[in-house]
Amino acid sequence: MTPAPLQRLIVELAKLPGIGEKTAQRLAFHILRAPPAYARDLAGAIVEVIERVRLCPVCCALTESDDCPQCQDPKRDDRLICVVETVADMLALERTREFNGRYHVLHGVLSPLDGVGPEQLHIKELIARLSGGVEEVIVATNPDVEGEVTALYLTKLIRPLGIRVTRIAQGVPMGGDLEFADQVTLARALTGRQEIR
Amino acid sequence: MTPAPLQRLIVELAKLPGIGEKTAQRLAFHILRAPPAYARDLAGAIVEVIERVRLCPVCCALTESDDCPQCQDPKRDDRLICVVETVADMLALERTREFNGRYHVLHGVLSPLDGVGPEQLHIKELIARLSGGVEEVIVATNPDVEGEVTALYLTKLIRPLGIRVTRIAQGVPMGGDLEFADQVTLARALTGRQEIR
Repeated sequence: MTPAPLQRLIVELAKLPGIGEKTAQRLAFHILRAPPAYARDLAGAIVEVIERVRLCPVCCALTESDDCPQCQDPKRDDRLICVVETVADMLALERTREFNGRYHVLHGVLSPLDGVGPEQLHIKELIARLSGGVEEVIVATNPDVEGEVTALYLTKLIRPLGIRVTRIAQGVPMGGDLEFADQVTLARALTGRQEIR
Repeated sequence: MTPAPLQRLIVELAKLPGIGEKTAQRLAFHILRAPPAYARDLAGAIVEVIERVRLCPVCCALTESDDCPQCQDPKRDDRLICVVETVADMLALERTREFNGRYHVLHGVLSPLDGVGPEQLHIKELIARLSGGVEEVIVATNPDVEGEVTALYLTKLIRPLGIRVTRIAQGVPMGGDLEFADQVTLARALTGRQEIR
C-alpha cells in the first residue's frame, strides 16, 4: 500500500536516534508534501556535512577548513584547555560565555565494558598539545561513573607533567530543590562547599 | 564554533514537524558520526521519494507507477469507497483488515479559517469515481469540527446522486474508561447505541 521509495525513506529515518516507526512515517509524509526544494536542500545538507566536516587534528572538534576557527582564534587563552566528551558538550559550555581558553574533544569516555579504552579516545592529541605553555587542564566530562574514571585517568597522565588538572564543580543545580536532590549530589555539594564572598 | 555545513543541516532538520533545535542538533551529530553510507542512503531516499512518488489521479493516494496498486487490485470491492483525510489515515484503517473496498484521499479537510475550501481538496476526483457502480461512500474524516463539516458537505453533494453516505461510528474507545470520557463522546456513544447481537 505504501510506495517502495516512501517505505525506504521511513526505514532510513527510523534509524535516527529517538525516531520510531510512527515519527519516521510522519516525517516522511512531511518531506513528501513540502515543496520539493526543501527535500533537495535537506538531502544536500546531509551529503555536504559528511563530505565537508571533519575533525581538527589539534583539538578534535569539528571543522570545515584546515584552520580550525577555535584553534586559530588569537583571542583565546592558550594556557587553559577544557576537555569535553562531545562537541555538543563543548557547544553547551561555550553558550555560558564563562570560558575563554581552548577546548579538546575526546569523542567519548573510558568505558571498558563497551570496549572503549584510552586508544579509542583522542587522548594522544591532548597530550601532544600540553607542551605549548598549557598551565591548567579542566576536565569537563559528565558527572557519571565513566566521566569520573576518565577524569582520574587524565589526572594521572597529566599531573606528572607539572600541569594543574581541575574538575568542573559538582553540586545542586540552579533552580533545583534540596529535598529532591539525590544523596551523591548532596554529598558532593557539601564536600565542595565554598566560602561565601 | 559550529562548522557552516553542520549548522545548515541543523537548520534544515529543525524545519521538520516536532523536531526542535536541540533534537535537530542531536540528529545532525548522529548523521555525522554514523558510517558515511548511512548519510548517502538517507539523502538518496529523500530525493527519490519526491522524484518517484506522486498522487494517483483516481484515488489520490500515493503511488509510484501509473497503475496505483490499490485502484488496480481486482480483489477490492468497487461498490464501497472510504473517504479519508490523509494517507496515514488510510494506512491506519488498512491495518484493521476490516475494509475491502476502495479508498479516496482528500489530503485535508474543509477549514475556511485556514483558507481550505472544496477546491483545495480532491473532491472533484471523488465525484468523478461515483458513476462507476459505487453504492456506498463511508466518510472516515477525523471526529473533530472540520472532519464533521467535511462529512456534512460530502453528504449534501453525494446523497442526491442516489448513493448511500455513511459515517464511521463515534463512541467510547476500546480500553477507555467511561468516567474519564468527555461528554460529547459519551453523548455520541448513547445516541449511536446498537442492539446487542
